[in-house]
Amino acid sequence: MSAGWLCIAGLGPGDAAMRTPEVAQALDQATDVVGYIPYVARVAPRDGLRLHPSDNRQELARAQAALAMAAAGRRVVVVSSGDPGVFAMASAVFEALEAAPAWQQLDIRVLPGITAMLAAAARAGAPLGHDFCAINLSDNLKPAATVEARVRAAAMADFAMAFYNPRSASRPDGFARILALLRATCEPERLVIFARAVGTPEEQLRTVTLDQARPEMADMRTVVLVGNAATRRVGRFVYTPRAAR
Amino acid sequence: MSAGWLCIAGLGPGDAAMRTPEVAQALDQATDVVGYIPYVARVAPRDGLRLHPSDNRQELARAQAALAMAAAGRRVVVVSSGDPGVFAMASAVFEALEAAPAWQQLDIRVLPGITAMLAAAARAGAPLGHDFCAINLSDNLKPAATVEARVRAAAMADFAMAFYNPRSASRPDGFARILALLRATCEPERLVIFARAVGTPEEQLRTVTLDQARPEMADMRTVVLVGNAATRRVGRFVYTPRAAR
Repeated sequence: MSAGWLCIAGLGPGDAAMRTPEVAQALDQATDVVGYIPYVARVAPRDGLRLHPSDNRQELARAQAALAMAAAGRRVVVVSSGDPGVFAMASAVFEALEAAPAWQQLDIRVLPGITAMLAAAARAGAPLGHDFCAINLSDNLKPAATVEARVRAAAMADFAMAFYNPRSASRPDGFARILALLRATCEPERLVIFARAVGTPEEQLRTVTLDQARPEMADMRTVVLVGNAATRRVGRFVYTPRAAR
Repeated sequence: MSAGWLCIAGLGPGDAAMRTPEVAQALDQATDVVGYIPYVARVAPRDGLRLHPSDNRQELARAQAALAMAAAGRRVVVVSSGDPGVFAMASAVFEALEAAPAWQQLDIRVLPGITAMLAAAARAGAPLGHDFCAINLSDNLKPAATVEARVRAAAMADFAMAFYNPRSASRPDGFARILALLRATCEPERLVIFARAVGTPEEQLRTVTLDQARPEMADMRTVVLVGNAATRRVGRFVYTPRAAR
Protein backbone atom coordinates (compact mmCIF):
# COMPACT_ATOMS: atom_id res chain seq x y z
CA MET A 1 0.00 0.00 0.00
CA SER A 2 2.57 2.64 0.93
CA ALA A 3 4.83 2.08 -2.07
CA GLY A 4 3.32 5.28 -3.39
CA TRP A 5 5.54 8.01 -4.77
CA LEU A 6 5.36 11.43 -6.34
CA CYS A 7 7.53 12.67 -9.22
CA ILE A 8 7.35 16.32 -10.23
CA ALA A 9 8.52 16.03 -13.81
CA GLY A 10 9.38 18.37 -16.67
CA LEU A 11 8.12 17.31 -20.11
CA GLY A 12 10.42 19.75 -21.89
CA PRO A 13 9.13 22.28 -24.39
CA GLY A 14 6.96 19.93 -26.46
CA ASP A 15 8.81 17.59 -28.82
CA ALA A 16 9.38 14.20 -27.16
CA ALA A 17 12.95 14.28 -28.54
CA MET A 18 13.70 16.83 -25.79
CA ARG A 19 12.10 14.77 -22.98
CA THR A 20 14.69 13.05 -20.78
CA PRO A 21 14.72 9.23 -20.38
CA GLU A 22 14.16 9.50 -16.61
CA VAL A 23 10.94 11.46 -17.17
CA ALA A 24 9.79 8.96 -19.82
CA GLN A 25 10.50 6.13 -17.36
CA ALA A 26 8.55 7.78 -14.53
CA LEU A 27 5.57 8.17 -16.88
CA ASP A 28 5.87 4.47 -17.83
CA GLN A 29 5.74 3.45 -14.16
CA ALA A 30 3.02 5.87 -13.06
CA THR A 31 -0.54 5.01 -12.11
CA ASP A 32 -1.66 8.68 -12.19
CA VAL A 33 -0.67 11.79 -14.13
CA VAL A 34 -1.71 15.18 -12.80
CA GLY A 35 -1.35 18.59 -14.44
CA TYR A 36 -2.65 21.48 -16.47
CA ILE A 37 -4.93 20.28 -19.32
CA PRO A 38 -2.58 20.87 -22.32
CA TYR A 39 0.39 19.25 -20.53
CA VAL A 40 -1.52 16.12 -19.49
CA ALA A 41 -2.65 15.90 -23.13
CA ARG A 42 0.99 15.34 -24.08
CA VAL A 43 1.11 12.05 -22.13
CA ALA A 44 0.12 8.97 -24.14
CA PRO A 45 -2.89 7.21 -22.58
CA ARG A 46 -2.52 3.50 -21.70
CA ASP A 47 -4.28 0.84 -19.64
CA GLY A 48 -3.75 1.32 -15.94
CA LEU A 49 -2.91 5.02 -16.22
CA ARG A 50 -5.38 7.57 -14.91
CA LEU A 51 -5.08 11.09 -16.31
CA HIS A 52 -6.14 14.01 -14.10
CA PRO A 53 -6.13 17.19 -16.17
CA SER A 54 -7.06 20.39 -14.37
CA ASP A 55 -7.44 24.05 -15.24
CA ASN A 56 -4.94 26.86 -15.01
CA ARG A 57 -4.62 28.63 -11.62
CA GLN A 58 -5.54 25.37 -9.83
CA GLU A 59 -1.90 24.71 -8.93
CA LEU A 60 -2.26 24.37 -5.16
CA ALA A 61 -5.38 22.19 -5.27
CA ARG A 62 -3.69 20.03 -7.93
CA ALA A 63 -0.59 19.66 -5.76
CA GLN A 64 -2.67 18.64 -2.73
CA ALA A 65 -4.57 16.06 -4.77
CA ALA A 66 -1.32 14.61 -6.10
CA LEU A 67 0.19 14.34 -2.60
CA ALA A 68 -2.98 12.69 -1.29
CA MET A 69 -2.84 10.08 -4.06
CA ALA A 70 0.83 9.31 -3.39
CA ALA A 71 0.04 8.98 0.33
CA ALA A 72 -2.66 6.47 -0.60
CA GLY A 73 -0.10 4.30 -2.40
CA ARG A 74 -0.45 5.57 -5.99
CA ARG A 75 2.53 6.29 -8.24
CA VAL A 76 1.91 9.87 -9.27
CA VAL A 77 3.62 12.12 -11.81
CA VAL A 78 2.85 15.83 -11.68
CA VAL A 79 3.71 17.15 -15.14
CA SER A 80 4.86 20.63 -16.13
CA SER A 81 5.93 21.91 -19.49
CA GLY A 82 9.65 22.70 -19.60
CA ASP A 83 11.30 22.35 -16.18
CA PRO A 84 9.09 21.89 -13.12
CA GLY A 85 11.36 24.14 -11.02
CA VAL A 86 11.11 27.18 -13.33
CA PHE A 87 7.77 28.99 -12.91
CA ALA A 88 5.98 25.65 -12.79
CA MET A 89 4.59 23.00 -10.45
CA ALA A 90 7.51 22.17 -8.12
CA SER A 91 7.10 25.22 -5.87
CA ALA A 92 3.32 24.63 -5.69
CA VAL A 93 3.90 21.05 -4.47
CA PHE A 94 6.32 22.22 -1.78
CA GLU A 95 3.86 24.91 -0.70
CA ALA A 96 1.23 22.18 -0.31
CA LEU A 97 3.75 20.03 1.54
CA GLU A 98 4.56 22.84 3.96
CA ALA A 99 0.90 22.91 5.02
CA ALA A 100 0.78 19.11 5.51
CA PRO A 101 3.70 17.85 7.64
CA ALA A 102 2.26 14.31 7.65
CA TRP A 103 3.16 14.01 3.95
CA GLN A 104 6.76 15.22 4.29
CA GLN A 105 8.14 11.67 4.58
CA LEU A 106 6.66 10.64 1.23
CA ASP A 107 8.95 9.51 -1.60
CA ILE A 108 9.08 12.75 -3.60
CA ARG A 109 11.47 13.54 -6.44
CA VAL A 110 11.84 16.43 -8.87
CA LEU A 111 12.90 15.43 -12.41
CA PRO A 112 14.30 18.36 -14.40
CA GLY A 113 13.38 19.17 -18.00
CA ILE A 114 14.49 21.48 -20.80
CA THR A 115 13.00 24.81 -19.80
CA ALA A 116 11.50 27.13 -22.46
CA MET A 117 14.20 29.81 -22.33
CA LEU A 118 16.98 27.28 -23.01
CA ALA A 119 15.08 25.58 -25.84
CA ALA A 120 14.43 29.02 -27.35
CA ALA A 121 18.04 30.10 -26.87
CA ALA A 122 19.26 26.93 -28.61
CA ARG A 123 17.02 27.60 -31.62
CA ALA A 124 18.28 31.20 -31.85
CA GLY A 125 21.97 30.41 -31.33
CA ALA A 126 23.39 31.34 -27.93
CA PRO A 127 21.75 34.57 -26.70
CA LEU A 128 22.07 33.44 -23.05
CA GLY A 129 25.76 32.59 -23.39
CA HIS A 130 26.76 35.10 -20.71
CA ASP A 131 25.24 36.05 -17.32
CA PHE A 132 21.45 36.13 -17.57
CA CYS A 133 18.28 36.15 -15.52
CA ALA A 134 14.82 34.62 -15.76
CA ILE A 135 11.82 36.75 -14.79
CA ASN A 136 8.16 35.75 -14.71
CA LEU A 137 6.29 38.81 -15.97
CA SER A 138 2.95 37.58 -14.66
CA ASP A 139 1.70 39.75 -11.84
CA ASN A 140 -0.74 37.11 -10.56
CA LEU A 141 1.54 36.36 -7.63
CA LYS A 142 3.62 39.51 -7.25
CA PRO A 143 3.15 43.25 -7.61
CA ALA A 144 3.88 44.78 -11.01
CA ALA A 145 6.30 47.15 -9.23
CA THR A 146 8.44 44.18 -8.13
CA VAL A 147 8.57 42.87 -11.71
CA GLU A 148 9.58 46.28 -13.03
CA ALA A 149 12.25 46.79 -10.36
CA ARG A 150 13.83 43.46 -11.30
CA VAL A 151 13.84 44.20 -15.02
CA ARG A 152 15.40 47.60 -14.32
CA ALA A 153 18.08 46.05 -12.07
CA ALA A 154 18.87 43.40 -14.67
CA ALA A 155 19.17 45.98 -17.46
CA MET A 156 21.41 48.26 -15.37
CA ALA A 157 23.73 45.34 -14.52
CA ASP A 158 23.74 44.24 -18.20
CA PHE A 159 22.26 40.78 -17.74
CA ALA A 160 20.69 39.07 -20.73
CA MET A 161 17.08 38.32 -19.80
CA ALA A 162 14.40 35.71 -20.37
CA PHE A 163 10.79 36.68 -19.76
CA TYR A 164 8.22 33.97 -19.04
CA ASN A 165 4.47 34.62 -19.32
CA PRO A 166 5.06 38.02 -20.93
CA ARG A 167 1.47 38.77 -21.81
CA SER A 168 -2.05 37.46 -21.32
CA ALA A 169 -5.56 38.59 -22.20
CA SER A 170 -6.16 39.56 -18.57
CA ARG A 171 -3.15 41.92 -18.42
CA PRO A 172 -2.39 43.30 -21.87
CA ASP A 173 -0.54 46.41 -20.60
CA GLY A 174 2.21 45.09 -18.34
CA PHE A 175 4.48 43.96 -21.16
CA ALA A 176 4.13 47.34 -22.93
CA ARG A 177 5.41 48.98 -19.73
CA ILE A 178 8.35 46.52 -19.61
CA LEU A 179 9.31 47.36 -23.19
CA ALA A 180 9.10 51.09 -22.40
CA LEU A 181 11.31 50.54 -19.36
CA LEU A 182 13.88 48.68 -21.48
CA ARG A 183 13.85 51.47 -24.08
CA ALA A 184 14.64 53.96 -21.32
CA THR A 185 17.66 51.89 -20.22
CA CYS A 186 19.08 50.11 -23.27
CA GLU A 187 20.18 51.20 -26.74
CA PRO A 188 17.56 50.95 -29.57
CA GLU A 189 19.63 48.28 -31.36
CA ARG A 190 19.37 45.83 -28.44
CA LEU A 191 18.28 42.44 -29.83
CA VAL A 192 14.99 40.93 -28.67
CA ILE A 193 13.87 37.41 -29.59
CA PHE A 194 10.21 36.38 -29.51
CA ALA A 195 10.15 32.58 -29.37
CA ARG A 196 6.69 31.07 -29.58
CA ALA A 197 5.77 27.43 -28.93
CA VAL A 198 9.33 26.16 -29.37
CA GLY A 199 9.48 22.42 -29.90
CA THR A 200 5.93 22.21 -31.26
CA PRO A 201 4.56 22.32 -34.84
CA GLU A 202 3.55 25.98 -34.21
CA GLU A 203 7.11 27.04 -33.41
CA GLN A 204 7.95 30.57 -34.52
CA LEU A 205 11.08 32.61 -33.88
CA ARG A 206 11.38 36.31 -34.59
CA THR A 207 14.39 38.52 -33.80
CA VAL A 208 13.96 42.29 -33.80
CA THR A 209 15.74 45.29 -32.34
CA LEU A 210 14.32 46.87 -29.19
CA ASP A 211 12.98 49.88 -31.13
CA GLN A 212 11.02 47.47 -33.38
CA ALA A 213 9.65 45.33 -30.53
CA ARG A 214 5.86 45.56 -30.03
CA PRO A 215 3.77 44.09 -27.20
CA GLU A 216 1.60 42.19 -29.74
CA MET A 217 4.64 40.11 -30.74
CA ALA A 218 4.20 38.10 -27.50
CA ASP A 219 1.41 35.98 -26.06
CA MET A 220 1.27 33.42 -23.23
CA ARG A 221 2.99 30.77 -25.38
CA THR A 222 5.94 33.09 -26.04
CA VAL A 223 9.19 33.34 -24.14
CA VAL A 224 11.00 36.62 -24.78
CA LEU A 225 14.80 36.77 -24.72
CA VAL A 226 16.59 40.11 -24.44
CA GLY A 227 20.29 40.20 -25.21
CA ASN A 228 22.89 42.08 -23.22
CA ALA A 229 24.78 45.06 -24.66
CA ALA A 230 27.17 42.79 -26.58
CA THR A 231 24.61 40.37 -28.06
CA ARG A 232 24.79 40.32 -31.84
CA ARG A 233 23.91 38.49 -35.04
CA VAL A 234 26.23 36.16 -36.86
CA GLY A 235 24.70 34.81 -40.07
CA ARG A 236 21.21 33.51 -39.19
CA PHE A 237 22.11 33.18 -35.49
CA VAL A 238 22.06 35.46 -32.42
CA TYR A 239 24.71 35.03 -29.76
CA THR A 240 26.20 36.66 -26.70
CA PRO A 241 29.99 36.52 -26.47
CA ARG A 242 31.62 34.85 -23.48
CA ALA A 243 33.71 37.89 -22.61
CA ALA A 244 32.51 41.11 -21.00
CA ARG A 245 34.12 44.42 -20.29
CA MET B 1 31.04 15.72 -49.62
CA SER B 2 29.06 18.66 -48.26
CA ALA B 3 26.53 16.63 -46.26
CA GLY B 4 28.59 17.69 -43.25
CA TRP B 5 26.89 19.18 -40.22
CA LEU B 6 27.68 20.51 -36.77
CA CYS B 7 25.60 19.94 -33.64
CA ILE B 8 26.48 21.80 -30.47
CA ALA B 9 24.98 19.46 -27.91
CA GLY B 10 24.41 19.39 -24.16
CA LEU B 11 25.10 16.06 -22.44
CA GLY B 12 23.23 17.10 -19.29
CA PRO B 13 24.84 16.94 -15.87
CA GLY B 14 26.26 13.41 -16.09
CA ASP B 15 23.74 10.59 -15.78
CA ALA B 16 22.58 9.40 -19.23
CA ALA B 17 19.03 9.32 -17.84
CA MET B 18 19.10 13.13 -18.09
CA ARG B 19 20.43 13.21 -21.68
CA THR B 20 17.73 14.02 -24.25
CA PRO B 21 16.90 11.59 -27.09
CA GLU B 22 17.82 14.18 -29.76
CA VAL B 23 21.33 14.50 -28.30
CA ALA B 24 21.68 10.71 -28.11
CA GLN B 25 20.60 10.48 -31.76
CA ALA B 26 23.08 13.13 -32.90
CA LEU B 27 25.87 11.19 -31.19
CA ASP B 28 24.70 7.99 -32.92
CA GLN B 29 24.91 9.68 -36.34
CA ALA B 30 28.18 11.55 -35.75
CA THR B 31 31.53 10.82 -37.34
CA ASP B 32 33.40 13.11 -34.91
CA VAL B 33 32.95 14.24 -31.31
CA VAL B 34 34.83 17.31 -30.11
CA GLY B 35 35.06 18.71 -26.57
CA TYR B 36 36.79 19.12 -23.26
CA ILE B 37 38.49 15.87 -22.16
CA PRO B 38 36.08 14.79 -19.35
CA TYR B 39 33.00 15.48 -21.49
CA VAL B 40 34.26 13.55 -24.53
CA ALA B 41 35.01 10.69 -22.09
CA ARG B 42 31.26 10.45 -21.44
CA VAL B 43 30.60 9.46 -25.07
CA ALA B 44 30.71 5.70 -25.75
CA PRO B 45 33.39 4.83 -28.35
CA ARG B 46 32.31 2.88 -31.42
CA ASP B 47 33.60 1.99 -34.88
CA GLY B 48 33.51 4.93 -37.27
CA LEU B 49 33.48 7.54 -34.51
CA ARG B 50 36.55 9.70 -33.96
CA LEU B 51 36.90 11.32 -30.54
CA HIS B 52 38.75 14.64 -30.32
CA PRO B 53 39.26 15.52 -26.65
CA SER B 54 41.03 18.80 -25.91
CA ASP B 55 42.11 20.72 -22.86
CA ASN B 56 40.31 23.43 -20.91
CA ARG B 57 40.66 27.01 -22.21
CA GLN B 58 41.02 25.70 -25.80
CA GLU B 59 37.42 26.63 -26.59
CA LEU B 60 38.01 28.83 -29.63
CA ALA B 61 40.56 26.52 -31.28
CA ARG B 62 38.22 23.58 -30.62
CA ALA B 63 35.31 25.45 -32.20
CA GLN B 64 37.37 26.30 -35.30
CA ALA B 65 38.49 22.69 -35.69
CA ALA B 66 34.89 21.47 -35.40
CA LEU B 67 33.66 23.95 -38.02
CA ALA B 68 36.50 22.98 -40.39
CA MET B 69 35.57 19.30 -40.07
CA ALA B 70 31.88 20.00 -40.77
CA ALA B 71 32.90 22.10 -43.80
CA ALA B 72 34.90 19.10 -45.03
CA GLY B 73 31.77 16.93 -44.94
CA ARG B 74 32.08 15.34 -41.49
CA ARG B 75 29.14 14.99 -39.07
CA VAL B 76 30.45 16.69 -35.97
CA VAL B 77 29.06 16.95 -32.43
CA VAL B 78 30.63 19.51 -30.11
CA VAL B 79 29.78 18.32 -26.59
CA SER B 80 29.34 20.37 -23.43
CA SER B 81 28.29 19.26 -20.00
CA GLY B 82 24.83 20.56 -19.07
CA ASP B 83 23.44 22.95 -21.68
CA PRO B 84 25.76 24.20 -24.45
CA GLY B 85 24.22 27.69 -24.29
CA VAL B 86 24.92 28.25 -20.57
CA PHE B 87 28.60 29.10 -19.97
CA ALA B 88 29.62 26.41 -22.44
CA MET B 89 30.61 25.81 -26.06
CA ALA B 90 27.78 27.41 -28.09
CA SER B 91 29.05 30.99 -27.72
CA ALA B 92 32.58 29.87 -28.57
CA VAL B 93 31.36 28.27 -31.82
CA PHE B 94 29.49 31.43 -32.82
CA GLU B 95 32.57 33.52 -32.03
CA ALA B 96 34.57 31.29 -34.37
CA LEU B 97 31.81 31.54 -36.98
CA GLU B 98 31.85 35.35 -36.78
CA ALA B 99 35.50 35.31 -37.84
CA ALA B 100 34.83 32.91 -40.74
CA PRO B 101 31.89 34.07 -42.92
CA ALA B 102 32.52 31.26 -45.42
CA TRP B 103 31.27 28.77 -42.81
CA GLN B 104 28.05 30.63 -41.95
CA GLN B 105 25.97 28.62 -44.43
CA LEU B 106 26.90 25.31 -42.79
CA ASP B 107 24.18 23.11 -41.26
CA ILE B 108 24.59 24.09 -37.58
CA ARG B 109 22.17 23.26 -34.77
CA VAL B 110 22.26 23.77 -31.00
CA LEU B 111 20.71 20.93 -28.97
CA PRO B 112 19.82 21.98 -25.42
CA GLY B 113 20.59 19.93 -22.31
CA ILE B 114 19.77 19.94 -18.60
CA THR B 115 22.03 22.65 -17.21
CA ALA B 116 23.76 22.19 -13.84
CA MET B 117 21.72 24.76 -11.91
CA LEU B 118 18.41 23.12 -12.88
CA ALA B 119 19.65 19.61 -12.08
CA ALA B 120 20.91 20.90 -8.72
CA ALA B 121 17.67 22.77 -8.04
CA ALA B 122 15.64 19.62 -8.77
CA ARG B 123 17.71 17.60 -6.30
CA ALA B 124 17.26 20.26 -3.61
CA GLY B 125 13.54 20.86 -4.20
CA ALA B 126 12.64 24.11 -5.97
CA PRO B 127 15.05 26.85 -4.84
CA LEU B 128 14.81 28.58 -8.27
CA GLY B 129 11.00 28.55 -8.27
CA HIS B 130 10.80 32.33 -8.48
CA ASP B 131 12.76 34.94 -10.49
CA PHE B 132 16.46 34.03 -10.57
CA CYS B 133 19.73 34.72 -12.34
CA ALA B 134 22.74 32.73 -13.48
CA ILE B 135 26.19 34.22 -13.03
CA ASN B 136 29.54 32.77 -14.07
CA LEU B 137 31.93 33.70 -11.24
CA SER B 138 35.02 32.98 -13.32
CA ASP B 139 36.96 36.15 -14.04
CA ASN B 140 38.85 34.61 -17.00
CA LEU B 141 36.71 36.52 -19.47
CA LYS B 142 35.40 39.46 -17.46
CA PRO B 143 36.65 41.79 -14.73
CA ALA B 144 35.98 40.75 -11.12
CA ALA B 145 34.30 44.14 -10.63
CA THR B 146 31.66 43.23 -13.25
CA VAL B 147 30.96 39.94 -11.47
CA GLU B 148 30.61 41.71 -8.14
CA ALA B 149 28.35 44.44 -9.54
CA ARG B 150 26.00 41.77 -10.95
CA VAL B 151 25.84 39.82 -7.70
CA ARG B 152 25.11 43.04 -5.80
CA ALA B 153 22.35 44.03 -8.28
CA ALA B 154 20.79 40.56 -8.06
CA ALA B 155 20.83 40.59 -4.26
CA MET B 156 19.33 44.08 -4.07
CA ALA B 157 16.50 43.09 -6.45
CA ASP B 158 15.95 39.85 -4.48
CA PHE B 159 16.66 37.39 -7.26
CA ALA B 160 17.57 33.83 -6.32
CA MET B 161 21.00 33.13 -7.84
CA ALA B 162 22.98 30.31 -9.38
CA PHE B 163 26.76 30.64 -9.50
CA TYR B 164 28.73 28.62 -12.07
CA ASN B 165 32.50 28.09 -11.75
CA PRO B 166 32.54 29.56 -8.23
CA ARG B 167 36.11 28.71 -7.39
CA SER B 168 39.29 27.37 -8.95
CA ALA B 169 42.87 26.83 -7.84
CA SER B 170 43.98 29.82 -9.93
CA ARG B 171 41.57 32.24 -8.21
CA PRO B 172 40.86 31.07 -4.67
CA ASP B 173 39.84 34.51 -3.33
CA GLY B 174 37.05 35.68 -5.64
CA PHE B 175 34.38 33.47 -4.13
CA ALA B 176 35.28 34.62 -0.60
CA ARG B 177 34.66 38.19 -1.74
CA ILE B 178 31.29 37.17 -3.23
CA LEU B 179 30.24 35.58 0.06
CA ALA B 180 31.31 38.71 1.96
CA LEU B 181 29.30 40.85 -0.46
CA LEU B 182 26.22 38.66 0.06
CA ARG B 183 26.63 38.90 3.87
CA ALA B 184 26.64 42.69 3.56
CA THR B 185 23.36 42.62 1.60
CA CYS B 186 21.34 39.61 2.79
CA GLU B 187 20.20 38.30 6.18
CA PRO B 188 22.45 35.66 7.87
CA GLU B 189 19.71 33.01 7.59
CA ARG B 190 19.66 33.18 3.77
CA LEU B 191 19.87 29.60 2.43
CA VAL B 192 22.85 28.58 0.30
CA ILE B 193 23.09 25.22 -1.48
CA PHE B 194 26.42 23.75 -2.55
CA ALA B 195 25.67 21.14 -5.21
CA ARG B 196 28.69 19.18 -6.36
CA ALA B 197 28.85 16.82 -9.36
CA VAL B 198 25.08 16.40 -9.57
CA GLY B 199 24.07 13.41 -11.68
CA THR B 200 27.37 11.59 -11.12
CA PRO B 201 28.41 8.97 -8.52
CA GLU B 202 30.24 11.75 -6.62
CA GLU B 203 27.07 13.83 -6.19
CA GLN B 204 26.95 15.79 -2.94
CA LEU B 205 24.38 18.34 -1.78
CA ARG B 206 24.84 20.58 1.23
CA THR B 207 22.48 23.31 2.40
CA VAL B 208 23.71 25.90 4.89
CA THR B 209 22.77 29.39 5.98
CA LEU B 210 24.76 32.31 4.59
CA ASP B 211 26.54 32.85 7.91
CA GLN B 212 27.73 29.23 7.80
CA ALA B 213 28.85 29.30 4.15
CA ARG B 214 32.61 28.99 3.60
CA PRO B 215 34.58 29.37 0.36
CA GLU B 216 36.05 25.86 0.77
CA MET B 217 32.57 24.36 0.37
CA ALA B 218 32.83 25.02 -3.39
CA ASP B 219 35.20 23.88 -6.13
CA MET B 220 35.02 23.92 -9.94
CA ARG B 221 32.60 20.98 -9.99
CA THR B 222 30.16 22.82 -7.69
CA VAL B 223 27.22 24.98 -8.64
CA VAL B 224 26.12 27.27 -5.81
CA LEU B 225 22.46 28.23 -5.43
CA VAL B 226 21.48 31.19 -3.24
CA GLY B 227 17.83 31.54 -2.30
CA ASN B 228 15.87 34.76 -2.29
CA ALA B 229 14.56 36.33 0.94
CA ALA B 230 11.58 33.94 1.03
CA THR B 231 13.42 30.68 0.29
CA ARG B 232 12.91 28.14 3.08
CA ARG B 233 13.10 24.53 4.13
CA VAL B 234 10.18 22.14 4.09
CA GLY B 235 11.12 18.72 5.41
CA ARG B 236 14.29 17.63 3.59
CA PHE B 237 13.66 20.07 0.71
CA VAL B 238 14.46 23.72 0.00
CA TYR B 239 12.02 25.78 -2.03
CA THR B 240 11.17 29.31 -3.06
CA PRO B 241 7.49 30.21 -3.02
CA ARG B 242 5.79 31.36 -6.21
CA ALA B 243 4.47 34.56 -4.65
CA ALA B 244 6.49 37.66 -3.78
CA ARG B 245 5.69 40.86 -1.99
